[in-house]
Amino acid sequence: MTKRTLTLAALCITLPTLAAHADAIPEDVARDAAMLRDQAVSESPAWDIVESLTSEVGPRLAGSAGDRAAVRWALEKLESLGLQNVRREDTVVPHWDRGTISLRITDPFPQTLVATSLGGSPGTPEHGIDAEIVRVESLAELRALQPEDLTGRIAFIDHVMEAARDGSGYGVSSRIRGCGHVVAAERGALATIIRSAGTSHHRFAHTGSMLRNSIPADIPGVAISNSDADLLGYQVATGEPVRVRLRSTARFLPDEISANVIGEVPGRGDAADEIVLLGAHLDSWDLGTGAIDDGSGVAMVAAAAKLILDHGRPRRTIRVVLYANEEFGLSGANQYLNDHEDDVGNHVVGLEADFGAGRVWRVSSRVAEESLDIIDELHALLEPLGIERGDNTAFGGADLSPLRRAGMPVIGLSHDGSEYFHYHHTADDTLDKIDPAALNQSVAAYTTAAFVAANIERDFGRLPLDTSESSCAAEFDR
Amino acid sequence: MTKRTLTLAALCITLPTLAAHADAIPEDVARDAAMLRDQAVSESPAWDIVESLTSEVGPRLAGSAGDRAAVRWALEKLESLGLQNVRREDTVVPHWDRGTISLRITDPFPQTLVATSLGGSPGTPEHGIDAEIVRVESLAELRALQPEDLTGRIAFIDHVMEAARDGSGYGVSSRIRGCGHVVAAERGALATIIRSAGTSHHRFAHTGSMLRNSIPADIPGVAISNSDADLLGYQVATGEPVRVRLRSTARFLPDEISANVIGEVPGRGDAADEIVLLGAHLDSWDLGTGAIDDGSGVAMVAAAAKLILDHGRPRRTIRVVLYANEEFGLSGANQYLNDHEDDVGNHVVGLEADFGAGRVWRVSSRVAEESLDIIDELHALLEPLGIERGDNTAFGGADLSPLRRAGMPVIGLSHDGSEYFHYHHTADDTLDKIDPAALNQSVAAYTTAAFVAANIERDFGRLPLDTSESSCAAEFDR
Repeated sequence: MTKRTLTLAALCITLPTLAAHADAIPEDVARDAAMLRDQAVSESPAWDIVESLTSEVGPRLAGSAGDRAAVRWALEKLESLGLQNVRREDTVVPHWDRGTISLRITDPFPQTLVATSLGGSPGTPEHGIDAEIVRVESLAELRALQPEDLTGRIAFIDHVMEAARDGSGYGVSSRIRGCGHVVAAERGALATIIRSAGTSHHRFAHTGSMLRNSIPADIPGVAISNSDADLLGYQVATGEPVRVRLRSTARFLPDEISANVIGEVPGRGDAADEIVLLGAHLDSWDLGTGAIDDGSGVAMVAAAAKLILDHGRPRRTIRVVLYANEEFGLSGANQYLNDHEDDVGNHVVGLEADFGAGRVWRVSSRVAEESLDIIDELHALLEPLGIERGDNTAFGGADLSPLRRAGMPVIGLSHDGSEYFHYHHTADDTLDKIDPAALNQSVAAYTTAAFVAANIERDFGRLPLDTSESSCAAEFDR
Repeated sequence: MTKRTLTLAALCITLPTLAAHADAIPEDVARDAAMLRDQAVSESPAWDIVESLTSEVGPRLAGSAGDRAAVRWALEKLESLGLQNVRREDTVVPHWDRGTISLRITDPFPQTLVATSLGGSPGTPEHGIDAEIVRVESLAELRALQPEDLTGRIAFIDHVMEAARDGSGYGVSSRIRGCGHVVAAERGALATIIRSAGTSHHRFAHTGSMLRNSIPADIPGVAISNSDADLLGYQVATGEPVRVRLRSTARFLPDEISANVIGEVPGRGDAADEIVLLGAHLDSWDLGTGAIDDGSGVAMVAAAAKLILDHGRPRRTIRVVLYANEEFGLSGANQYLNDHEDDVGNHVVGLEADFGAGRVWRVSSRVAEESLDIIDELHALLEPLGIERGDNTAFGGADLSPLRRAGMPVIGLSHDGSEYFHYHHTADDTLDKIDPAALNQSVAAYTTAAFVAANIERDFGRLPLDTSESSCAAEFDR
């Protein structure tokens, strides 16, 4: 689409709201945003950034050598892009080590399964755990079991995650990953095996944290691939007792220092104190090279900042925050709130890129009611990218949640998640899963939204404080 | 398609040849073949057979405990299907053990690669091999290197296998797997790393034999996944020297006894001595559960025999041969020729199912010229399955090659190989890769062809003896 047709399209769409809110986004801002958007679609530094991160650093689990290498890489990369005030803000991170694992069916039909420890799992005793499997398909079924059903056995939670564009199947599956072991341990289980919280059609086990609120797990938690869950299910269905031998050397090592890495496109004059935050997380799980989780997010927000920087100084400051340890307890996100507590009110709005590298298909928000006309006009600018208008209940992303709960409005750009959970938290999360065209479309969306947010006079209001807590008990009571 | 329309179609297609060879396939045989074909499409025992094999036995590398379990399984399965003269014919097989492997880039950007040893590879010294990588893209490039280029280094042969319905890309890639190490070792290389001979888009290394004519390899051979080859290629492209550390405990153990497992649908009267051979191989690589290589082939030929058995005794005997150790030197195939040398002339024709579980898209042959009209009429019976007519240069399959070289004609049913090499020789070769509808379409094709071959009066002539030998030197001279 040419700029001319875009402007016309934008005009047509915004016409109905013009009477109520003329120029929520002034014409010159809209024009430049559209230009940057079209530029990003055709070319951006995003691919080079994610290729460099995945190829030169690769896996970067919190606390590992890869994590330290990633912090060094990010400082250099943001500097080389020309961002300003590039710095690290240190935080303590847990350091969990996956060690080695073996999981083998010993009866009735011996087979070795593809398995991986869940993040935060303790290891087994050195001689392993030999025990019978009790299979259930849901947390409700697991909770219905009695101690005599599970004591001395291993719970196998065989729930098949559904694939969906909005990733909605992950809710149930990640709850099983985070709460299953709590329920099982209460009933005397020795370990929990889950069908992966993921939709890979291939033989990859999906890892992910088994901890909720960083509470240590009492028993080992293991994920097996969908193929292997089928296989284990087949053996259970024979009616014979199914026994497995599990050995794992997973363990916690001493905490380490990591860092949020920050770089800015400085704003102008008084408005320079106001911040439009672009977030992604620098850490990754250890199995893949962290391409779509969250190398692509890092690339999107860094590329968006670079494009805006090259265009010229915005009113407000655009702050890129590459968070430490999202995967394993949001260390960096909590640290950021701690470090910037006095300044939360200056965080005008935040956007987080942490849902893979699929095309953005929806813009939603969580902003004050009176600011929704800005989102309407922003949507008109995003519509040529094939982006729908969502509602005002955006989650905003895990790393932004501490700031959001403290009142910062968020704009949510939803990536197509149909394939995200094929690769998420597996060894298969590698560069070749990223479509360069989808990556640039995403960059275009972040660039447009950030440019608009940083250049308009108006703001997005504030959100009410949110002090709710997440726990397994709370989940069950829902 | 109804039986009536099928018969009409068959008539139309065979009309041109009717003058020369009326009734190459008599009408009653064609009618019953079509009936069995349609029955197989809608229902066959194939799925249950391959599900049982992959779930109850799983990996069954020649010489391993899984191999012995597979022989027991096959004897029981063929018996339970009601096949006659079920027996084992023993053979000695090599017993290679993959052991463990680690392959890590140490410079310039440390990363661990997904790698697997190639079948027959020796291990490394216990402390591993630390060496610089020399990257080439073809055997020709490798042969152009001098000892000073490769001595003390590791050759990385980075050839990308092309995906194709007929699997044609595998020729070049398997030649690299089988001959690359010979060329590299001659020039002083310490090991060979190849980009997998396979087309998986996921992070699986494809194993496969690195030996040609069972000649032991001098240096370790390792395959890395396509994703990891990209990563290694990126580091080489930086221009920095790239060093890796390779450790492998692969080794040969003492030879073991395995067996071809045989079952028959006995023929009638004098023709009972004549054999229509249906072959597949019982062994598999150790990484996956051997679903498409070659559990599906085992299921297809066993299911075809079962359908024909239930229909009634054919003229000729249909002999199902589940070969031992196809993957690693054709032990079973050579043993079979040895055991049945005096009887080769009675092997009227052979069909082998060993190219995955894709739909059959072509029927080709290697038969005497004067028998081609039978293939024409057979094709008419197969055409309702969407099967094209191929030529008379069918390969016939690896396990049938000793018999074919000794004169036995073959009919080749070509499976769609577009996806076969995504899974071939990887941990991802599991049951969920099989489409039940494609499996039954294949069973229908084997059933039709075997039923026709076993019930017609005529035969397929004999092939000239073939005494050519395969070697790397011969490959290079082509």
